[in-house]
Amino acid sequence: MERHFDQELGDLKKDLLKIAALAEEAIRRSVGALKNNDRLMAKHVIEEDARIDALELSIDEKCIDLIARHQPMARDLRFITSAMKINAELERIADLAVDISQRVFELADKPLLKPLEDIPKLTMVAQRMVRMAIDAFVKEDSVLALEVLKEDCEADALRNSIQDELVNDFMAKDGSAAPRAVPLLLIARHLERICDHATNIAEDVIYIIEAETVKHRRKVS
Amino acid sequence: MERHFDQELGDLKKDLLKIAALAEEAIRRSVGALKNNDRLMAKHVIEEDARIDALELSIDEKCIDLIARHQPMARDLRFITSAMKINAELERIADLAVDISQRVFELADKPLLKPLEDIPKLTMVAQRMVRMAIDAFVKEDSVLALEVLKEDCEADALRNSIQDELVNDFMAKDGSAAPRAVPLLLIARHLERICDHATNIAEDVIYIIEAETVKHRRKVS
Repeated sequence: MERHFDQELGDLKKDLLKIAALAEEAIRRSVGALKNNDRLMAKHVIEEDARIDALELSIDEKCIDLIARHQPMARDLRFITSAMKINAELERIADLAVDISQRVFELADKPLLKPLEDIPKLTMVAQRMVRMAIDAFVKEDSVLALEVLKEDCEADALRNSIQDELVNDFMAKDGSAAPRAVPLLLIARHLERICDHATNIAEDVIYIIEAETVKHRRKVS
Repeated sequence: MERHFDQELGDLKKDLLKIAALAEEAIRRSVGALKNNDRLMAKHVIEEDARIDALELSIDEKCIDLIARHQPMARDLRFITSAMKINAELERIADLAVDISQRVFELADKPLLKPLEDIPKLTMVAQRMVRMAIDAFVKEDSVLALEVLKEDCEADALRNSIQDELVNDFMAKDGSAAPRAVPLLLIARHLERICDHATNIAEDVIYIIEAETVKHRRKVS
């Protein structure tokens, strides 16, 4: 029984790694679609989301089933309820990749305002944060999870700089830039929200390991 | 034992009603601060968020503790795990009220582009959806929960109409409007995301009641 339970927890980890990989791939592809003005790729990201949604549901069901059958206590229970939360975060990350892809359609008829620089940078930060957060979860590594929390400031700074440039250097000087600038501004916000979800995952990891909550303490301080 | 457990479930419902009331109040105040250019009120919403965060954590702990002590099965277990999700949604709704309040500071030195019309309308939709979703949860009323799902289209339409007007009727015609238009555009998006969270709550309610998942079926269709 005990070994069986451990094996099921191992399977749960594998499922979360799978949905994480799909979410990360969705981010990569959505920004790739933006860079290359590739509407087919954007459409692909939107269509693939149904698979990620289905996987989220199946993971959720497995978690409830695990609790019902094994009635785990303390740390194992905390692990499973946190897995449910991490699962939801990953599904939302994939939703944000869909949002980015939808912006690609809004931009597709219009020439880019300027070569993309900061958005690819912010994308790399977002992908790195998601990967680190999931690594921290799999390895139960709270030091790595704390690294994720630190990265969030960089993401905020990049998002603010992208937004300031689009508002003050483009739109304020030439109003006709607005229909091309607003989707980029929103993409920067979608990416920054992906970083926020990675931060939430990292906080869940720390919570599992330390059974104490850094979540809101950080916000209050 | 049985009655004690029922009483604890009742307390859990009360706690969720409390965090829902605080979240709804935060929405009302943040948009009030926008209407009246009231920075003190905006600051108040931002400061009060710490209380909502603390309540979210305490509800989460209670849920885990309930599962650990009573090892509930089937519907009760589903109710408690859904309560954890609804709790997280409400905390995020309050975070969005904080986001709206932050936009109030960005706008506070600048005259409004025009009298606010659609944003108060969207706010009313958002508040109604949150209230209905929580009512549906408390009364375990799946018909009411389905009503919430229907309202989401209205929220999307209002958000799109606000965004189109700001981009095409204001910014595109006069670039100098951008620093005043962009925060309003973001507020419309914050409000629409509040509606999305209310939708998520309604889906959780249907899930508890019908033990079947409308969540992604709706998205796929």
